[in-house]
Amino acid sequence: MNFFQKTISLPAFPRGYHLITREVLSQFPDIKSIETGFLHVFIKHTSASLTINENADESVRDDFESHMNKLVPEDAAHFTHTMEGPDDMPAHIKASMMGSSVQIPVKNGALQLGTWQGIYLCEHRDRGGARKLVVTAFGS
Amino acid sequence: MNFFQKTISLPAFPRGYHLITREVLSQFPDIKSIETGFLHVFIKHTSASLTINENADESVRDDFESHMNKLVPEDAAHFTHTMEGPDDMPAHIKASMMGSSVQIPVKNGALQLGTWQGIYLCEHRDRGGARKLVVTAFGS
Amino acid sequence: MNFFQKTISLPAFPRGYHLITREVLSQFPDIKSIETGFLHVFIKHTSASLTINENADESVRDDFESHMNKLVPEDAAHFTHTMEGPDDMPAHIKASMMGSSVQIPVKNGALQLGTWQGIYLCEHRDRGGARKLVVTAFGS
Repeated sequence: MNFFQKTISLPAFPRGYHLITREVLSQFPDIKSIETGFLHVFIKHTSASLTINENADESVRDDFESHMNKLVPEDAAHFTHTMEGPDDMPAHIKASMMGSSVQIPVKNGALQLGTWQGIYLCEHRDRGGARKLVVTAFGS
Repeated sequence: MNFFQKTISLPAFPRGYHLITREVLSQFPDIKSIETGFLHVFIKHTSASLTINENADESVRDDFESHMNKLVPEDAAHFTHTMEGPDDMPAHIKASMMGSSVQIPVKNGALQLGTWQGIYLCEHRDRGGARKLVVTAFGS
Repeated sequence: MNFFQKTISLPAFPRGYHLITREVLSQFPDIKSIETGFLHVFIKHTSASLTINENADESVRDDFESHMNKLVPEDAAHFTHTMEGPDDMPAHIKASMMGSSVQIPVKNGALQLGTWQGIYLCEHRDRGGARKLVVTAFGS
């Protein structure tokens, strides 16, 4: 049983949904030591999130951004947490709707993702800045 | 510490929400070898998802389908990813709202679910076909 | 490799979103034995859920409650699962949108949360009563 854990930093991304699978793997070669197990990725923020979705057509990520903006609009009259800007409270809600971590099975040192799956960073703030992830690989 | 991992296939389900707890357990007897640990179920697709919800009244699953269709309607004018049919882009968004995996505590070889909990396959496509899951049991 | 697992009980909370990080840790000192690993918290219910979000300003939790009530309103005409009261079916859907578990990296016996992160109990029922959590710490 092995346990590798490391905090990595992502560069600042613009608001929207971004494929980060390659970036995560390039910063975390330890996954290659896992024969059977998992990669767990956790984001240390409450206005950005992680999810797994289509890795091919960029229009999927665009539509995520526009639809989530409809579901959680910035100008909702019932928001009271508005001091940090109109994009802040929607960012918190979207973050919980998407989730703060993903966990992916690993076999022979490689992610067992489906053909069309990739890891998304969901940046819900206009200027979120660099984001910190805690990445853990564990298994036999 | 033990680690059992296997890819299983679910038969094609119609669009909607379906209880799959028994199906998963019947294809994965290895869970019985875990004294204290977890069952993790991961779906290798981006237009179907997994969640945990009520295992009793079928009307709960029906209402999930109708309400998620309201939250992510097929005819939303802002969708640009429309080439694979009107049910495709909503399927991606619903999939991330529900999630691509569930992880359930295991004790003495059995799932520690609450009385009313079961695992749902959320089939968001009209014709999603067979779906592949990576099932992992780990623990002492 | 160590595996600690325990069922704990939370007191009844009013409908809404509540910070429970301290309560969970105080009932589960075993986390201190984990050098590198995880804390996993699972809720054994289908009308309450768990998520990670801002631990500071209470207005964030208030806005979560009011916005999720807009997204999943009690009086939706398409709901058929209404026998257990108008707050029941919305509670199921909100529970799956937030999720039934959270998993947080642990280092030297402490949660590796970001500065502003805390664990929320999302109580979606008017009178949900006491809630049971299965808490597991594992790692080296």
